[in-house]
Amino acid sequence: MGTEFLKIKECEEAQDIIQELFDKYCKAQSEEIDCEDAYGRVLYNDVYSRMDFPPFDKALKDGFAILSEDSFGASEESPNTLEVIDFLEAGSITDKKVEKGKCVEISTGAAMPEGADAVVMVEYSEKFDDKVNLLTTATPSQDVAKKGSDIEEGNLILKKGDVLNPGKIGVLLSQGFKTIEVFKKPSVGVISSGNEITMQGEDLPFGKIYDVNGNMIKNDAISCGCDARFLGVVRDNYDQVKEKIQESLKEVDVLLCSGGTSAGLGDVIKHVLDELGEVYIHGISVQPGKPTIVGVIDEKLVIGLPGNPVSALMIFNAFVAPPLTKMAGIERDFESKVVNGVMTRRIHSPVGRMQYQLVKVDGSDVHPIFKDSGAIFSLSSADGYVKVEKSVELLDEGEEVEVYLFN
Amino acid sequence: MGTEFLKIKECEEAQDIIQELFDKYCKAQSEEIDCEDAYGRVLYNDVYSRMDFPPFDKALKDGFAILSEDSFGASEESPNTLEVIDFLEAGSITDKKVEKGKCVEISTGAAMPEGADAVVMVEYSEKFDDKVNLLTTATPSQDVAKKGSDIEEGNLILKKGDVLNPGKIGVLLSQGFKTIEVFKKPSVGVISSGNEITMQGEDLPFGKIYDVNGNMIKNDAISCGCDARFLGVVRDNYDQVKEKIQESLKEVDVLLCSGGTSAGLGDVIKHVLDELGEVYIHGISVQPGKPTIVGVIDEKLVIGLPGNPVSALMIFNAFVAPPLTKMAGIERDFESKVVNGVMTRRIHSPVGRMQYQLVKVDGSDVHPIFKDSGAIFSLSSADGYVKVEKSVELLDEGEEVEVYLFN
Repeated sequence: MGTEFLKIKECEEAQDIIQELFDKYCKAQSEEIDCEDAYGRVLYNDVYSRMDFPPFDKALKDGFAILSEDSFGASEESPNTLEVIDFLEAGSITDKKVEKGKCVEISTGAAMPEGADAVVMVEYSEKFDDKVNLLTTATPSQDVAKKGSDIEEGNLILKKGDVLNPGKIGVLLSQGFKTIEVFKKPSVGVISSGNEITMQGEDLPFGKIYDVNGNMIKNDAISCGCDARFLGVVRDNYDQVKEKIQESLKEVDVLLCSGGTSAGLGDVIKHVLDELGEVYIHGISVQPGKPTIVGVIDEKLVIGLPGNPVSALMIFNAFVAPPLTKMAGIERDFESKVVNGVMTRRIHSPVGRMQYQLVKVDGSDVHPIFKDSGAIFSLSSADGYVKVEKSVELLDEGEEVEVYLFN
Repeated sequence: MGTEFLKIKECEEAQDIIQELFDKYCKAQSEEIDCEDAYGRVLYNDVYSRMDFPPFDKALKDGFAILSEDSFGASEESPNTLEVIDFLEAGSITDKKVEKGKCVEISTGAAMPEGADAVVMVEYSEKFDDKVNLLTTATPSQDVAKKGSDIEEGNLILKKGDVLNPGKIGVLLSQGFKTIEVFKKPSVGVISSGNEITMQGEDLPFGKIYDVNGNMIKNDAISCGCDARFLGVVRDNYDQVKEKIQESLKEVDVLLCSGGTSAGLGDVIKHVLDELGEVYIHGISVQPGKPTIVGVIDEKLVIGLPGNPVSALMIFNAFVAPPLTKMAGIERDFESKVVNGVMTRRIHSPVGRMQYQLVKVDGSDVHPIFKDSGAIFSLSSADGYVKVEKSVELLDEGEEVEVYLFN
């Protein structure tokens, strides 16, 4: 007890420091993955077309590939008759050449035979034996997609930062990309700590509670595009915490610890950071979530979040999610995740500290969630939070506010 | 060539038939999974609390657990002095009882000792030896979260259909849930077909194209909450298609085939369906995407999508995504995925068929994408589509339209 916070930071200062540490120690990385596993991943580079598409002059209809001039003047009353010298399905080729008076029967998607410059649809033809009557006049290029008409080789087709949805992956596949370079998912480990923490599936002795933060923060990190793992629970014990942190840092880029609710654990993490690395933030002037700690060990970030789940969720969203998401290559505009609404009840706020008030949003109604910060059930209905500046003592009913939505 | 469409349906009729077939043959199923893997999954049942939370009277602050009446009248000028009989950290218990004149030093999160009904914060106390001076008056229950004050046993905490985000999973974890019943992801297989189809990584001979639909439609199904797999390419050959469909139906609930661009393949799938099962839809009166086929084999749905990727994507979104998503338990309001905007250019539409016009949305501007339906690159910029009713011949520049956004 009696934790001393020697490096307390205001909110914006803390956000800046954390972003700078990420920029320095947690640079975005790339990896080459198979396109078939690329759904939801983020492009690391601009992508240029490798070839013309379509890669050949392509028939757009079932019918007859002709020299267009052979159809000039043709009509139902006065058809032009051509010799059918071959049949082409999609994927087939022929070495026969279409010359004056000749044509090739063709399926949609097939490459146009040499010499032909138009397709007459089957609906405007009458085939008999090895001949066909054309019942209409076709213009040059009619029902033909010219080689490169969709895209020519060497054009920008997708941009760095594009999130690969089904259509964008379709574009890569059409160009024959088997693999693609994407942002590597940041590797994040989560440790839960506290003597009171019990794992699900075990009996719950009096005075203990089940762990929430381990898997919750893991899922929060996943929602930021990370590859996140829950690495287990440690007790409020210097050697155990130190060993677990050292062991975990071998496996991950960023380590998120969520302290037990006791103040003691924050001290333990601080002392481990002091011994093995450096503390940059110890305390943020925000309610809830003051006992947040940020340090670096062996060029890797270690962030201690508050023990109580509501505080942990808010601190994660406000301070950790933006740099993690950026590291994952996702250009998420956190400001665009802000919605406007009107408070349905008055809330009081401590002067001198920024307050994050959990809220539920219902249309334009913003309902404050009043449970104490240790309450878990508010999590099931919370949509985000409202920032109350440190100089503000209350937000009145009816006041317009901005809600920062959770991921 | 010369495919006969004997069961052509109007759009809404087709949507109804497909939904009815899903309701009959593709009922939503559930599975029990570990809560730690539950992120993004959908609850299959309402969930009730199993226990009071907090599970005990819990200290909300670091300080001293007292009988509140022992603090009455205390102030900085005139402190009340109590004997400190024990120290409780979170997770610890004591068999000592707090009686008049006694107290227990306590950490945030610890269970209140028997007899105590309030906490005096450490900031309002002075400890010396085994005694403490209280510098303030505490009211009963001050800084104590009573057992069950957050939630009582037996209350509804989460609802069927809730998508499990980090906070909702946190609520389950706090109640000690190790596993949870969620909607099973529908098992979807995708087959690509056509003699012209070549896989990425192979050379592309003249007249061939790389496969797009296999992995694109797989990803579309994943976006609907399915467990989807690309099962490979078949050639336009009756026996091969029949064998592949039979083999695939052993593995999946729903089979999506995307035909080659040739009309022949639609015939093959139709004949296989006729032989092994029943065809319910053969042709939908929509452009693009007319050659859509829907049938049932051994009580499993087989859907043949158009071969060209743009058509396949639109047919998937308009006809397959809604029932698949419902089967996955996701209550996605497809109507809410509609945005309003204004056409930036005129488009013409065939009378007598519903037209789906691919568009890009930019604020309130709706830009039609004009490439022919075989064009792939429109996929990289398309946001959704506009429906042009079959009686409408053109949508003029400036006209207000509704855009159906892709997943």
